[in-house]
Amino acid sequence: MYDYYDELGIGRETLLAQIKSQMSEKRFNHVLSVEKEAIRLAEIHGVDPQQAGLAGLLHDYAKELPDEEFQHLIKKYDLDRDLLNWGNNVWHGLVGIYKIREDFNLEDQEILQAIKVHTVGSSNMSKLDKVVYVADYTEETRNFPGVDEARKLADSDLNRAVAYESKSTIRHLCEKNVRIYPQALDTYNAFIQYI
Amino acid sequence: MYDYYDELGIGRETLLAQIKSQMSEKRFNHVLSVEKEAIRLAEIHGVDPQQAGLAGLLHDYAKELPDEEFQHLIKKYDLDRDLLNWGNNVWHGLVGIYKIREDFNLEDQEILQAIKVHTVGSSNMSKLDKVVYVADYTEETRNFPGVDEARKLADSDLNRAVAYESKSTIRHLCEKNVRIYPQALDTYNAFIQYI
Repeated sequence: MYDYYDELGIGRETLLAQIKSQMSEKRFNHVLSVEKEAIRLAEIHGVDPQQAGLAGLLHDYAKELPDEEFQHLIKKYDLDRDLLNWGNNVWHGLVGIYKIREDFNLEDQEILQAIKVHTVGSSNMSKLDKVVYVADYTEETRNFPGVDEARKLADSDLNRAVAYESKSTIRHLCEKNVRIYPQALDTYNAFIQYI
Repeated sequence: MYDYYDELGIGRETLLAQIKSQMSEKRFNHVLSVEKEAIRLAEIHGVDPQQAGLAGLLHDYAKELPDEEFQHLIKKYDLDRDLLNWGNNVWHGLVGIYKIREDFNLEDQEILQAIKVHTVGSSNMSKLDKVVYVADYTEETRNFPGVDEARKLADSDLNRAVAYESKSTIRHLCEKNVRIYPQALDTYNAFIQYI
């Protein structure tokens, strides 16, 4: 793993302690696994593993923030007011990056973008975006029907892996009768050609 | 059934002959079944059955139009150019109404709107829109898993019927790895609360 002094001005232990303070032990373990998987996928697919690792560590930093804080951030940063109609699952990436920017000295726009779209994806994803989006799904503690197929695709073809995950996300939300954020459909529509 | 002289300035037989000339016999029989089902649902749910019947008869009028004609209509009427990225399934309603307006003296905006959204729906549907959207799915010749449930809902609760159909549509397209028109997701998102 990496020491983040150069990027953040703090070392790994300080960073981990700050992340750990924001979440349950289970989620913190997931975060460590996503860091590991993101670095692994970055090395396979020619992405900067330091960027991938840091994005992995920070991707769920805001996941346990109270709804009121997200609502406050949406207003404070004058974000799309339609976001107020959605919930934590959409907010923790799209809005969570504003919390991360407040709490850390992180101005790497590529890392912030990968964290921003790690749940909903986008129609136009960088390789770093794809690595983090996929690593969140394929990290070693994940266990759901189809995870083995997702892991195989993650190693061999990032576009197919994004297609597989975005399709699974749409189906899963639909089966649960849950509203689907339009950007998640944009991701599906852009990548389903690769499946 | 109704004579359409008042609305269109032509009688039923002339109208049927014109519709029949545009499509296969199988589709023409489907059209007659949608007319019948739309009138039946209109009478249950307090919608004007004459509007519902005429929308049912005309809903697939443009379904067998060549792609080039749809592309021409999109440009001629300066419609959203993103429509060019889609195909017949999206076009025959959203663009088909421009063909209908050219071929018939039909200016009833409520009927045209119901035909416009009969495949993709919308987040804000009138009762007439819902009747035609649902009738296309529940008419008597339809035979697919879940059609009996769809028919039960159609008789008892139009919003639940739209929710059921929009969810089935999203799942079906997703299972076929087909792109989904964003307005179809808007319909799902607006109605899934009723399921």
